[in-house]
Amino acid sequence: VHHQRSVRGKEKRQQHQKSTQVQRSTHNTITSSVHVHPRKQFRFGENEPARNGRREPGRKKGEKDLIFPPAMASMAAFIAVTAPNSLHSISNPLRPQLPARLRLAPPPPVPFAVGKGRSTALRCAASCSLIEPDGGKLVDLVAREGPAREALRREAARCPQIKLSRIDLEWVHVLSEGWASPLCGFMREAEFLQTLHFNCLRLGDGSIVNMSVPIVLAIDDAQKRAIGDRRRIALVDARDKLVAILSDIDIYKHNKEERIARTWGTRVPGLPYVEEAITNAGNWLIGGDLEVIERIKYNDGLDKYRLSPAELREEFSRRNADAVFAFQLRNPVHNGHALLMTDTRRRLLEMGCKNPILLLHPLGGYTKADDVPLHWRMKQHEKVLEDGVLNPETTVVAIFPSPMHYTSPTEVQWHAKSRINAGANFYIVGRDAAGMSHPIEKRDLYDADHGKKVLSMAPGLERLNILPFKVAAYDKKQKKMAFFDPSRHQDFLFISGTKMRTLAKNRENPPDGFMCPGGWEVLVEYYDSSAAPQGANKFREAVPA
Amino acid sequence: VHHQRSVRGKEKRQQHQKSTQVQRSTHNTITSSVHVHPRKQFRFGENEPARNGRREPGRKKGEKDLIFPPAMASMAAFIAVTAPNSLHSISNPLRPQLPARLRLAPPPPVPFAVGKGRSTALRCAASCSLIEPDGGKLVDLVAREGPAREALRREAARCPQIKLSRIDLEWVHVLSEGWASPLCGFMREAEFLQTLHFNCLRLGDGSIVNMSVPIVLAIDDAQKRAIGDRRRIALVDARDKLVAILSDIDIYKHNKEERIARTWGTRVPGLPYVEEAITNAGNWLIGGDLEVIERIKYNDGLDKYRLSPAELREEFSRRNADAVFAFQLRNPVHNGHALLMTDTRRRLLEMGCKNPILLLHPLGGYTKADDVPLHWRMKQHEKVLEDGVLNPETTVVAIFPSPMHYTSPTEVQWHAKSRINAGANFYIVGRDAAGMSHPIEKRDLYDADHGKKVLSMAPGLERLNILPFKVAAYDKKQKKMAFFDPSRHQDFLFISGTKMRTLAKNRENPPDGFMCPGGWEVLVEYYDSSAAPQGANKFREAVPA
Repeated sequence: VHHQRSVRGKEKRQQHQKSTQVQRSTHNTITSSVHVHPRKQFRFGENEPARNGRREPGRKKGEKDLIFPPAMASMAAFIAVTAPNSLHSISNPLRPQLPARLRLAPPPPVPFAVGKGRSTALRCAASCSLIEPDGGKLVDLVAREGPAREALRREAARCPQIKLSRIDLEWVHVLSEGWASPLCGFMREAEFLQTLHFNCLRLGDGSIVNMSVPIVLAIDDAQKRAIGDRRRIALVDARDKLVAILSDIDIYKHNKEERIARTWGTRVPGLPYVEEAITNAGNWLIGGDLEVIERIKYNDGLDKYRLSPAELREEFSRRNADAVFAFQLRNPVHNGHALLMTDTRRRLLEMGCKNPILLLHPLGGYTKADDVPLHWRMKQHEKVLEDGVLNPETTVVAIFPSPMHYTSPTEVQWHAKSRINAGANFYIVGRDAAGMSHPIEKRDLYDADHGKKVLSMAPGLERLNILPFKVAAYDKKQKKMAFFDPSRHQDFLFISGTKMRTLAKNRENPPDGFMCPGGWEVLVEYYDSSAAPQGANKFREAVPA
Repeated sequence: VHHQRSVRGKEKRQQHQKSTQVQRSTHNTITSSVHVHPRKQFRFGENEPARNGRREPGRKKGEKDLIFPPAMASMAAFIAVTAPNSLHSISNPLRPQLPARLRLAPPPPVPFAVGKGRSTALRCAASCSLIEPDGGKLVDLVAREGPAREALRREAARCPQIKLSRIDLEWVHVLSEGWASPLCGFMREAEFLQTLHFNCLRLGDGSIVNMSVPIVLAIDDAQKRAIGDRRRIALVDARDKLVAILSDIDIYKHNKEERIARTWGTRVPGLPYVEEAITNAGNWLIGGDLEVIERIKYNDGLDKYRLSPAELREEFSRRNADAVFAFQLRNPVHNGHALLMTDTRRRLLEMGCKNPILLLHPLGGYTKADDVPLHWRMKQHEKVLEDGVLNPETTVVAIFPSPMHYTSPTEVQWHAKSRINAGANFYIVGRDAAGMSHPIEKRDLYDADHGKKVLSMAPGLERLNILPFKVAAYDKKQKKMAFFDPSRHQDFLFISGTKMRTLAKNRENPPDGFMCPGGWEVLVEYYDSSAAPQGANKFREAVPA
């Protein structure tokens, strides 16, 4: 239960209560007969009508909140009608059906009403607040301004110091704001081993949370010697600025071979994160509880986009969101993406949600050299909103501070889990999500379907509704991006990343309707600038849809 | 839910009922005030007295069976007294505390009594039957003798045929008898992915069972083509004898790199199972439900030892076992092992068990070339029982048909999980369990503690009581194997595997009391025979204790 220890209790609780109140009043304004319970499983593409309204096996009578909403089935049926082939249905006999089992505490009683949608089965359970963070409470490791912060800073100045790399600091950022809730610091060995072997952590009360990517801090022999038997150490940034204290530390072996093999499922050379952060790292890992002196800032003009999970939750509450769907990306947004996002909102509305909010959530941490840099991507995203491709009223654009691992089926769980902590209860998962090209062979490093398959089965993510990506392509007849229809496949044009890059580099235009003109200009500008890497670097990730 | 489909229902249910009845009557004969509930967590070496008798967090009132038995704490305290240093206590803040959550159905009401042991807290919950198999029902995939079997055989003769390797056939054996319950055949992709990423499978009702080692069948391109769109295929042995039908098949890519990296946590060359069974295997895996024509036999004189989980359960019931503790091994038994086993029984008796039965369970499937072959080991084990080192009254010797992976933290879970299915509720885990020497470097391939650490945290094994191995060595003062006492370390002699091998090869004797004379003679005979591998082969596994 050490997880909860470092949570800045009072401040956070107040914030939480506030957010809950806002949500409660939100709920009260909903007069519709259809409500969405954020903890329930709505799986686009899964059709299990036999479960309509039935009690789950093994559950006792009277546990109303665990009754399966027939909406699941109706949703699936609805999707099957609108997109018979383009929807990646994951049929899995072992599909989780008892998500609520892993819940920490029974939720408050919830209104339950029959809807009057197009299907007789269209109804679902309702809830009056955003999805709970993992572990029940959002971790916040940043010291409160004032004497506490100053005392921490003074103490840090007297501790043995470990210098953080850029990626280490990004992880401090991630941990400090509770993206990895309930994790309260760099992993100790017990957490590291569970992540490597099970992709999840068991909490003190027996419940399980997902945690697929090791969040660890490496030190070398000399640093280990310098720490000696001290129990608290200071972390400093590249310019020796005090960042945090790590306490109750656990130093254990950094078996890089095993870490890489179990996290990436391969030992192929050329894995970007491995080469950047592991190969030359120390032979020890140091875990412990983190106390961060002040909020991590980058001063790159983009800090306004770096909303913490708590701030995002406040924003969703402010907008009266009754569903939040997250879209993780690390590439420019084209109209295929936009179509997917607006279509998801449409589907959620049809399902009975009153105000589904999109979290457009570009990853802001370390990315490989041939990905478009963050500030160019943010510029492009801004244009997409300015050009009205996405509705600013129902879209929150923010930066996700995590670095990229490029380990598709493992990392996609992290991408989804962290968004639960930010309040998202729907997660859109793409083809080859968080994947990359094989560094040596001419193929994707991971099976393009494994990301969503593994995600759909991952322990600890039962509360999240997984929305598989529909394939979009340029429809030459309609002259716009549209969901691919295999029955008239000759009408569709798949614009590859290479093609897009070549066009942008040559200052040529893509077909009308591929990307909004403002967004395209940003790309042309980027490839025109000296910032773009030369040569054979690929831009394949930009056009998966 | 396909898992249950192939279970030979009626026969098995009858057997199960019978066994339950036997157990019930067993229970009725227990007049003691202290009973052992096989599903409860007794962790030697974990001391959490604060939990005594308290309700688990998150549980509702009235759920009696979920109350923590104070025995857990008393047990831990007791062990701490008797073996302060030799016991590998795993202190882990994330230690599972809600094992019963994952149970399929609430168990029958159980008497709960206060014991009168040496500690006031010495009492534990009781049960009237052996631990439930994973998934609630023991899988049995062997066709019943008679028309059903003959029909299956006739059908198999008309199916496309896949020839099984020796290891494939061992897995058919393992699957057919329910060691991998609730798995009902070679893994389909959904199961394979869950095993690789989570080391566990989620069942249709949301519960989780442990499954750490992929049980898969590889086929090559030509075999895949030959199968075409057939849904049922026949499996034949090396001499083309019909073995089984695999139905409702799922053919998917065999990504060997990923399978090896995620299962072994390394891509070092020289991994025995990898070289034997994966490197040259086909590029596809084929999963499905298995129907085995008749029981797998080896006709090597040892089939009498190959008891199925159902037969073991019957045997434990026949002996009125109220606790079963399993000892997995693949090496000769020396007196250090024997000491550990007899000491475990003594501790279980002190804990209040009336008749703990030892399952001495040598692994009978594929082992690497320098392990002592099965028939020599069985000969040695027979001598150990004949010489009275272990009490035949309270020991069941049987062969575990699984092949060895040598992937310590991953495989030890499989070794433990399969023994739950055989009725064991206590599992002894050694140093570097299921490990081996690094194929290239001069060290163990795995951290010697990771096996028991990972085992203690593994999802789906919450019902099993993990007993960490105590280190035994030759006590020169007592002239016998004894638990190592660091306070007089100079009195202890660690007899390495190499030392033992050298002695046996040179027909020299080890110190009196290291191994019973009959058992030692078998070893001398083995190393004298042409069967023993020559040269640098190591025998290091034999003397971990």
